[in-house]
Amino acid sequence: MQLTELTETHRPTLDQALDAIRTRAYWSPHPEHPKAYEGDGKAAFDALLGTRIDLGQPGTDDWVGGEISPYGPELGVTYPHPDLDVLLPAMRAGMGAWREAGPEARALVCLEILARISARTPEIAHAVMHTSGQAFMMAFQAGGPHAQDRGLEAVAYAYAEQVRTPLVTDWSKPQGKRDPLELRKSFTPAGRGISLLIGCNTFPTWNGYPGLFASLATGNPVLVKPHPRAVLPLALTVRIAREVLAEAGFDPNLVALAAERPGEGIAKTLALRPEIRIIDYTGSTAFGDWLEANARQAQVYTEKAGVNTVVIDSTDNYKGMLSNLSFSLSLYSGQMCTTPQNFLIPRDGITTDAGPKSYDEVVADLAGAVGGLLGDDARANALLGALVNPDVKARLEAASGLGEVALPSREITNPEFPDAVVRTPVVVKLDGTKPDAEAAYFSECFGPVSFAVAVDSTASALELLRRTVREKGAMTVGAYTTSADVEHAVEEVCFEESAQLSLNLTGGVYVNQTAAFSDFHGSGGNPAANAALCDGAFVANRFRVVEVRRQA
Amino acid sequence: MQLTELTETHRPTLDQALDAIRTRAYWSPHPEHPKAYEGDGKAAFDALLGTRIDLGQPGTDDWVGGEISPYGPELGVTYPHPDLDVLLPAMRAGMGAWREAGPEARALVCLEILARISARTPEIAHAVMHTSGQAFMMAFQAGGPHAQDRGLEAVAYAYAEQVRTPLVTDWSKPQGKRDPLELRKSFTPAGRGISLLIGCNTFPTWNGYPGLFASLATGNPVLVKPHPRAVLPLALTVRIAREVLAEAGFDPNLVALAAERPGEGIAKTLALRPEIRIIDYTGSTAFGDWLEANARQAQVYTEKAGVNTVVIDSTDNYKGMLSNLSFSLSLYSGQMCTTPQNFLIPRDGITTDAGPKSYDEVVADLAGAVGGLLGDDARANALLGALVNPDVKARLEAASGLGEVALPSREITNPEFPDAVVRTPVVVKLDGTKPDAEAAYFSECFGPVSFAVAVDSTASALELLRRTVREKGAMTVGAYTTSADVEHAVEEVCFEESAQLSLNLTGGVYVNQTAAFSDFHGSGGNPAANAALCDGAFVANRFRVVEVRRQA
Repeated sequence: MQLTELTETHRPTLDQALDAIRTRAYWSPHPEHPKAYEGDGKAAFDALLGTRIDLGQPGTDDWVGGEISPYGPELGVTYPHPDLDVLLPAMRAGMGAWREAGPEARALVCLEILARISARTPEIAHAVMHTSGQAFMMAFQAGGPHAQDRGLEAVAYAYAEQVRTPLVTDWSKPQGKRDPLELRKSFTPAGRGISLLIGCNTFPTWNGYPGLFASLATGNPVLVKPHPRAVLPLALTVRIAREVLAEAGFDPNLVALAAERPGEGIAKTLALRPEIRIIDYTGSTAFGDWLEANARQAQVYTEKAGVNTVVIDSTDNYKGMLSNLSFSLSLYSGQMCTTPQNFLIPRDGITTDAGPKSYDEVVADLAGAVGGLLGDDARANALLGALVNPDVKARLEAASGLGEVALPSREITNPEFPDAVVRTPVVVKLDGTKPDAEAAYFSECFGPVSFAVAVDSTASALELLRRTVREKGAMTVGAYTTSADVEHAVEEVCFEESAQLSLNLTGGVYVNQTAAFSDFHGSGGNPAANAALCDGAFVANRFRVVEVRRQA
Repeated sequence: MQLTELTETHRPTLDQALDAIRTRAYWSPHPEHPKAYEGDGKAAFDALLGTRIDLGQPGTDDWVGGEISPYGPELGVTYPHPDLDVLLPAMRAGMGAWREAGPEARALVCLEILARISARTPEIAHAVMHTSGQAFMMAFQAGGPHAQDRGLEAVAYAYAEQVRTPLVTDWSKPQGKRDPLELRKSFTPAGRGISLLIGCNTFPTWNGYPGLFASLATGNPVLVKPHPRAVLPLALTVRIAREVLAEAGFDPNLVALAAERPGEGIAKTLALRPEIRIIDYTGSTAFGDWLEANARQAQVYTEKAGVNTVVIDSTDNYKGMLSNLSFSLSLYSGQMCTTPQNFLIPRDGITTDAGPKSYDEVVADLAGAVGGLLGDDARANALLGALVNPDVKARLEAASGLGEVALPSREITNPEFPDAVVRTPVVVKLDGTKPDAEAAYFSECFGPVSFAVAVDSTASALELLRRTVREKGAMTVGAYTTSADVEHAVEEVCFEESAQLSLNLTGGVYVNQTAAFSDFHGSGGNPAANAALCDGAFVANRFRVVEVRRQA
C-alpha cells in the first residue's frame, strides 16, 4: 500500500471532512442503511463466537475474556492479556517512523483504517449489539457509520491542528543597515507517548473512536483497554488497525489491545504507567475524577455522568413535543449519557397549541405518548434493546419507590432472545420543592428512569437547571417554549454554565442524538465531561510542535 | 469608540498577525528601537513614584505596595488590595456583554489595548527595569515590543480558534423520499469564568501578556495578580485595559488588579476560588506543581523551571560559537528561564575550524569570551542588568564551591545606581560521571551560573540531555555539531522528549531568545512548562463552544 494510492483514495474524503467541520453542514461518507453494505454480518459474527482473537501482539501472557451478551448468549471469545513491560516498549518502538511520516500520511492511514472498519459494519454491528444490548438497528447505525463519522471527524481536527504550522520556514529579521538575521526553522508535530483508550460498555465504538483516532493521527501509539463486557467491537477495530498499519509499512504495534482478567482493574494500573501520556475515558464520574486527579503524567479526556434536563415552559406543537420526548426516553432504554432525565414542568401548567395543560395533564400525556410508542412489543424491542447490566435493572426497580409513578415500567419479551432483560421506561412524579425529592432528581439515575419534576415557575426551572448543570453536569439540555424571553433566558443559562441546548425539537431529531461534523457532543465546560467531541481542544494537546532552528 | 473605528484601525494588523502565525515568517508591528517612540518615559515613570495607583476597582479594602528596585530606589507606589467577595462578582458582571460582542470585537478591543500599551512603551520600560532588574535596553525591548508581540500573537490564536466554527449554520439531512431533517444551529464561543494571571518577577509583561490576552480575547475576565516585587508594569497594563474597555462600552472590571500585603500569599487563596476557571502562572516548579495538583476547578497553564543544556560536539565556527554562547550566558545575568546552564563537552575534546580543542581549552575559551564580552564595565552593566533578588546572589556565591571555577564572578559597579547588585557569570567545571557533581548540574541554579560538564562522549551527552529534559524539563536546548549523524541524534532526543532545539547558533540570534509569531517558547511537553507560547492548545480550552439547535 503506497502513499500515492492512499492519497488518491482518501485525500478527497479528508478534504470534505475538513470542509464539513468548518461549515458544520450535514455530511457523512458512511451510509446509515444496512442495504448499503455487503457481506453477511451475522455469519461473520457467529464465526467469531468461541474463538481466540490472536492479534499477534508482543508480550501476550494469557488469553482472557468472558463477555455475555445482554441478549443472553455467552460470546466465548478470548483476547490477549498483556505483559505491560513487554507490550508498552514494543508500542513505543514504531513511534519515530510514525512521526516522520507526517500529518498527512498519518491521516490517510487512519482513513484507510476507517474505510476497512466501514466495510465490516454489518459484522461490527452484531458485536456492538451483543455487548452493549443496543437493538440491532441502533447498534448498526450508532456503532457503525455514526461511530466512524466521529472517528473521521477526530482525524480531520487532528490533521488541521498539525498543519497550522508549516513544516519548514525561512525567517529573516531586518537589522537596519546590517545584514538581516536569518534562520531556517523546522516545525515537527510529535506525539506525546502512548495513548490509553478506556472503553465503555454502552457505546464501545462511538465513544472509543474519537480518542483512538485523534491520538493515532497526532503521532501516538494507542493502547485500547475495552470495558470487560464490550471487548469484541474494539478487538475487531484493533485488528483492522494493525493490518492497515503493517500494510502501509508501519509498526502494527502502534495500536494494541489490553484485555483484562475478571476483577483485575487493569485501567488503574495502566493509567499510572509513565509511558501513558494521554487517556481517553468514558464511564462513571467516580473513576473519571480519579483519573483526572491521579494520572498526572497524562493528558486526561473524560466523559463522565451528568443529569440531563428538559425545561417545559410552553409549546406550539404539543403533540410533536410529546412524540419527540417519548422517543428520547425510550431509545436504548434511556441508557445514553445524553438521555433526558429531569422534566421540569411548572406546577400551574403550561400553554400549548392544544390549550392550557396542567402539570398532571402534561405528565399523563407524556406517559401516554411513551405507552403508545412502546405499545407494540416488536416495535418496543426494536427501540429499547436490552438492559445492559443488572445495575440498570435494579435502579429501574427502585425508581418506582421514589415518588408517584406516572408510567410504570413494563416487562417485554424478546422472542428471539428470551434471556434479554427488556423494560419500558418508568416516569416518576416529584415535587421539586421537597428536599427528599431532590435526593432523587439531583443525581444521575442511569437507565430508563425519568422524573417529572413540578416546579413553581419557569424561572424556578431555570434556576434548578443552572444548579443542576453547575453541580452535576449535563451532556444535553432541552427546552420547549414559545416565549422569546424564556428562550433567551435558557440560552443565557447554557452559555454561562456551558451546556449544549436543543430548543423545541418536535420532529425527527432528538435531544440525545448528535451528528458528527456538525454537533458538539458535550461541551467540556461542565462536570459531565472535560472535553467536547470534537473540537480543537480535543486534539491540540495530543502532540507538541518541536521546533529546530538553524543558522541559515 | 465605535466598532467600525476599531475595525479600520486594527483589522489589518489582526490579519497580518493571523498570516504570521501561519507562515512563521518574521513580523512585528512593534518597533524595537526607542527612537520610534514618543514621550519622556523616564519623566512619566518618575511621576508615578510615591503615588497611589487607583484603578477605580470595586471592593478595594486597602492600599498596598512595597516594591524596591533591584537598582536600589524604593518605588513607593501603592495599589488596590481586593475584597474578593466584592471584586470577583463585579468582574463576572460584564461577562455576558463581552461574550455577546463576539470574537472579532473582542480581538479588536484587545488590539486597541495593545496599541495604547505600545504607545507607552518608554514608561513601561522603566517600570520593567526597576522591578525586574533588567538593563534598560532589554527592559525596553523584552518588556515592551516583544511582550506586546506575544500578547498580539495570543489574540491572533484566540481569534482563529473561535472562528473555526461558524456563528450560525443551517443543517439539512436527507431522508430519502421523506422531507429532510432540518435544524438551525448557532455556535457561541463562551468564556469559562474569571482567569487569574499570576505574574513573575523577572518578565512581568513578557510572561504575563500571553495569558492575559488569550483569556480576555476568548471572553473571560482577567484578574492580574503580579509578583509583589513587580507590580507596576502590570498595574499600568491593567489601567490601560480598563480605560479601553470602558471607552469601547464594556465593563472595565473585566480586567482588574489584585495586589497583596507582604507575605499574604494571595495567589493560593485566589487559585482555589470557584470563580477562577483559568490560571496562567510563571514561576517556581514547586508552586506550579501545587497549582496543577490543587486548582482542579481551573485550566492551569504553567511555566516552571527547567535545566537548559547545550551539547558541544564540534563546530565549523569556533569563534562564533564562543561569542554566541558568552552573550547567552551574560544577558540579564542568566536570569532567564531560557538561559543555558549545562554545557556538555566531551572530555577528549572537540573538533573545530580552529583545530582540535581539549575540554579544558573549550572551557577556558568560553570563559575568555565571557570575560572579553564583559571586560568593559559600561557594556557589562548594559548587558547584565542587576541581580533581581538576594537568592540569586546567594546561589551565585555558593556556586564557586561546587567545583573548579573556570571563570570567577566579578562584582561590577553601576555608577548611576550604586546600590544595584551587578555580577558577571561564574563558570564551574564539573565531571559528569561523578555522583556528587550530578547534584549540582541536575537541578536548576537560576542566575549567572553555568556548569561546563565533562562527559565521556557525545553519545553520553545525548543520554544526559535526554535524562535532563525528561526528569527536570528544559525551556531550551542548544547543540553545536558539524556531524549530520549527531545532528539527527540530537533532533531525535528533542522530538522524543519534546524540547525546542537551536542548532549551531553563531550569529546574532541566541538560544535564550524567541521571536513571537515564529518561535515557540517552551514546548509544553516536558516538565519545564505544560504549555507553549503560543499555539492552539494555549487558547483552545479557554472557552467552550455552546451550541443551540432549533427546529428549522
